[in-house]
Amino acid sequence: MPLSLFPIPKIPLIRPGDDLATILLEALENTHLSLEDGDILVLAQKIVSKAEGRQVNLAEINPSEAAIELATRSAKDPRLCELILRESNEILRVRPGTVIVEHRLGFVCASAGIDHSNVNAPEAQAAGTRPEDWVLLLPEDPDRSALEIRRRLKLLTGHCLGVMIIDSHGRAWRNGIVGTCIGLSGLPAVVDARGKPDLFGYRLRITFIAVADELAAAASLVMGEAAEGTPAVLVRGFPYPLREGSLKELLRPKEQDMFR
Amino acid sequence: MPLSLFPIPKIPLIRPGDDLATILLEALENTHLSLEDGDILVLAQKIVSKAEGRQVNLAEINPSEAAIELATRSAKDPRLCELILRESNEILRVRPGTVIVEHRLGFVCASAGIDHSNVNAPEAQAAGTRPEDWVLLLPEDPDRSALEIRRRLKLLTGHCLGVMIIDSHGRAWRNGIVGTCIGLSGLPAVVDARGKPDLFGYRLRITFIAVADELAAAASLVMGEAAEGTPAVLVRGFPYPLREGSLKELLRPKEQDMFR
Repeated sequence: MPLSLFPIPKIPLIRPGDDLATILLEALENTHLSLEDGDILVLAQKIVSKAEGRQVNLAEINPSEAAIELATRSAKDPRLCELILRESNEILRVRPGTVIVEHRLGFVCASAGIDHSNVNAPEAQAAGTRPEDWVLLLPEDPDRSALEIRRRLKLLTGHCLGVMIIDSHGRAWRNGIVGTCIGLSGLPAVVDARGKPDLFGYRLRITFIAVADELAAAASLVMGEAAEGTPAVLVRGFPYPLREGSLKELLRPKEQDMFR
Repeated sequence: MPLSLFPIPKIPLIRPGDDLATILLEALENTHLSLEDGDILVLAQKIVSKAEGRQVNLAEINPSEAAIELATRSAKDPRLCELILRESNEILRVRPGTVIVEHRLGFVCASAGIDHSNVNAPEAQAAGTRPEDWVLLLPEDPDRSALEIRRRLKLLTGHCLGVMIIDSHGRAWRNGIVGTCIGLSGLPAVVDARGKPDLFGYRLRITFIAVADELAAAASLVMGEAAEGTPAVLVRGFPYPLREGSLKELLRPKEQDMFR
């Protein structure tokens, strides 16, 4: 069976409190696709964060002294820097235009994953606020978000599915961003291939495969440049057995990391 | 159109001098798949390296003083360390069991991508050598390898295809290996999304998408744990315009890298 990734078109703009599971099922009705057990839904972080009300109006943020100092070093808005600090365990690198952090969720990313674009501008204006002041934080707990969406989909459809939430991350050493898992439920994050012999009976020395990140990259390719356009992808043919997984599987302990 | 990745089964063991294009076309004949313009073939590094005769018998390697020193620090075979040094621009990190280098091709990886497993053991024994002494180097120039296979496929089928060669790399910060592009021809490595407005007319601040690495990760998922089993994947529905690409697009210049 091939691995197939179907973009789910016509997902409307998401607002705080929206029921993503229902919205996804409605969008799927516009396609020729029907869900099957073992399918995986990959969701862009943005729609999950928006449904969870993670929008913040910078006009309401008072930057601390540390945020003002970070703003000077990074040439970023002090109020944004305040949010970056609140959302991070540790600031790892700062250059003008770039702040690399360990997010409070444990992964390394730029600007604590806080996104300035794609806030619903017309609504911001209608509310008397400046669209450019709104930013979007990552979900509070993406593993939990994925679990809740998965449970709701199970309730609505009866199907056992996997759900993964992805964001676009830069990497050390290589140019360009790639889709990266920030939370999941119902599929493994990492598969342990230790001890499986190869064709000639040698034990494979390569041990762990980051299958969730591989799938996140694949789904990101299908979501395309404007993640708002197709922020959800249906995956069929995931080649590993499904089980409950967690972002934590993907996080290398700091003391084992040679590049921190 | 979905993005679909089909494993190409029944690829035989590859030997030096083999014509990979012909072997791939023969393997495709065993499937219901026929090539179309715009398809991309993703190949595991191993089969390309084997066809190019990149096998080395460690019994023929005399380790230098530097290699013996590296062997002490890394707890690896001094002869393997000699090859790692020859294949690398720079040694970045060394711990017992691990050597992270900048490969002479410019990317960062473990052990210069030299693989100990999956050498054709019966043939090694028949030739009076020890199977465990054979290792496999990466292709001399994977972009060129991809171009040559692409040209040969064009000649044999008339189809305009993309060809990518991938390996499994570890990453900073995150557990597990992921499929990663080490050479390509006929598809972009990086897509520039700068200046494309989002739904609300904001300019996207995220600039470059590493589409080749995203596709490499996707293909790796399909190749599975035992890369020797399905070392080639046919990709249909790649969502970006094809053009000539190069590994160089993916390599972050050292002076711009905050994690070296």
